[in-house]
Amino acid sequence: MPRSNPTEARRGPPDHIERLRVRFSDTDGMGIAHHSNYFRWLEEARLGFLRGAGFAYAEVERSGLHMPLIECACRYLAGTRSEDQLEICLWVAHVSRAGIGFEYEVRLEGSGDPIAVANTVHAFTRDDGRPTRIEPDSAIWRWLSGIRARL
Amino acid sequence: MPRSNPTEARRGPPDHIERLRVRFSDTDGMGIAHHSNYFRWLEEARLGFLRGAGFAYAEVERSGLHMPLIECACRYLAGTRSEDQLEICLWVAHVSRAGIGFEYEVRLEGSGDPIAVANTVHAFTRDDGRPTRIEPDSAIWRWLSGIRARL
Amino acid sequence: MPRSNPTEARRGPPDHIERLRVRFSDTDGMGIAHHSNYFRWLEEARLGFLRGAGFAYAEVERSGLHMPLIECACRYLAGTRSEDQLEICLWVAHVSRAGIGFEYEVRLEGSGDPIAVANTVHAFTRDDGRPTRIEPDSAIWRWLSGIRARL
Amino acid sequence: MPRSNPTEARRGPPDHIERLRVRFSDTDGMGIAHHSNYFRWLEEARLGFLRGAGFAYAEVERSGLHMPLIECACRYLAGTRSEDQLEICLWVAHVSRAGIGFEYEVRLEGSGDPIAVANTVHAFTRDDGRPTRIEPDSAIWRWLSGIRARL
Repeated sequence: MPRSNPTEARRGPPDHIERLRVRFSDTDGMGIAHHSNYFRWLEEARLGFLRGAGFAYAEVERSGLHMPLIECACRYLAGTRSEDQLEICLWVAHVSRAGIGFEYEVRLEGSGDPIAVANTVHAFTRDDGRPTRIEPDSAIWRWLSGIRARL
Repeated sequence: MPRSNPTEARRGPPDHIERLRVRFSDTDGMGIAHHSNYFRWLEEARLGFLRGAGFAYAEVERSGLHMPLIECACRYLAGTRSEDQLEICLWVAHVSRAGIGFEYEVRLEGSGDPIAVANTVHAFTRDDGRPTRIEPDSAIWRWLSGIRARL
Repeated sequence: MPRSNPTEARRGPPDHIERLRVRFSDTDGMGIAHHSNYFRWLEEARLGFLRGAGFAYAEVERSGLHMPLIECACRYLAGTRSEDQLEICLWVAHVSRAGIGFEYEVRLEGSGDPIAVANTVHAFTRDDGRPTRIEPDSAIWRWLSGIRARL
Repeated sequence: MPRSNPTEARRGPPDHIERLRVRFSDTDGMGIAHHSNYFRWLEEARLGFLRGAGFAYAEVERSGLHMPLIECACRYLAGTRSEDQLEICLWVAHVSRAGIGFEYEVRLEGSGDPIAVANTVHAFTRDDGRPTRIEPDSAIWRWLSGIRARL
């Protein structure tokens, strides 16, 4: 049976699904969540993706590795309201020792249809903000290179 | 055995506990959650309290009843960081047909000690923003008056 | 003398410059403004652009015309800190009776170099959220069609 | 002629007035600015107060002195909407070498009536978060002790 979700047809199931509830304070004067807040939800999905693999972002940062966002984009297909329960679906789109990119779909829980599709690109940097390359024998690279092998 | 938490000793167990995770975007340049965001978490606890009793706030508003916040205060005892799992404990402090007040403790999950204590006061208003009194024979007043009888 | 700014060389001077200060609460745990907040600043530039032409957005909405954002993207070239004074430079990229697109550069005041470049796309909708086309004889269309003639 | 504003009658003119515009993203699903954002505006008034006296907060922090907020409260008298131009009036309420307290009135520009009254209390701390006392011969204490002499 064909899968109806085009992203899953192309990419397979998400690498991570973060479940969160729209906060009342996420909404704006139009009564729906402000577009800027979607990027805050995507960030929670990234943190959950790392945490689920044993790499709490605070510890990653303490080890001297940072993943600042350098590009992002989002397309909005429908609005979401206060208390809506969301699924933020995350896929690794590309990864190298210098950086990582993600694709996302924001879905209402229990619905396969995305209400937003998005992507972000991140550089790897050191404490001083300079670009760096992940150590090839580090635990985080062993995990990420395993993901890359599947892309 | 005496309870160690002074609020629970005085008030009994919370009327509602809302569990939520500190978002990275809740933090500020000091590396801890910005003090303004605690008020956003308290709001989620109020919505969860209403929802748990069958009164989703969006439906309450559609019925013509609003509960705008008219006063709030918070005392901060310790900072919280990105990804911390929190319990927002809520107690009804007072309620009448004209308004309602809440007390709160923000706790790190699994710890009895509050990291913040807070209170808010809300008026009941109509769609036009004018003060109103809840209908005495409404479902929401039957619920709230039951809580008031226990205070 | 050649202009050094590539966007201005291509597009001419901005259609609007919105000046604003980075709020401390715009920063995150990295000590720089959170990437999501740039989209909030772009929105202020759009409101300032409309207001400067005599079309306060609240009045536009009361007239039954809305401009929801349906796509956005941003590329970040450098961080900004609390209290930085910014110039949000806005250009109309395309406009029709069905929608409008903008390009932006975020600059530190007094510096020609962008710290971020961005774009947004907006549909025109009615009060019920349905797509609409601006009335051709309306004041706002007379203004926008004049801009379109220059693109 | 008697002054009509009760805070000014009691305290004299504000120690600082910060002018800012309500951002669309400051509003919530009720169409007015979310109550939590008032605390963000108060913070901008504190930063403007320090900056106006030559003490940019980033530099104060680099010198090893921090002023975390430990208590805050606000009473809301009227709502404010997107694009409203506000005056955040700030008074020093008390100050010692260990901490400082402020009172505030939020006013619509050109109106003497407050739409919110608030207060905040701040401790002085070192880089490690421990309480400290401001050096008595520091420039910032010479300025603050001058203010204290007038209270």
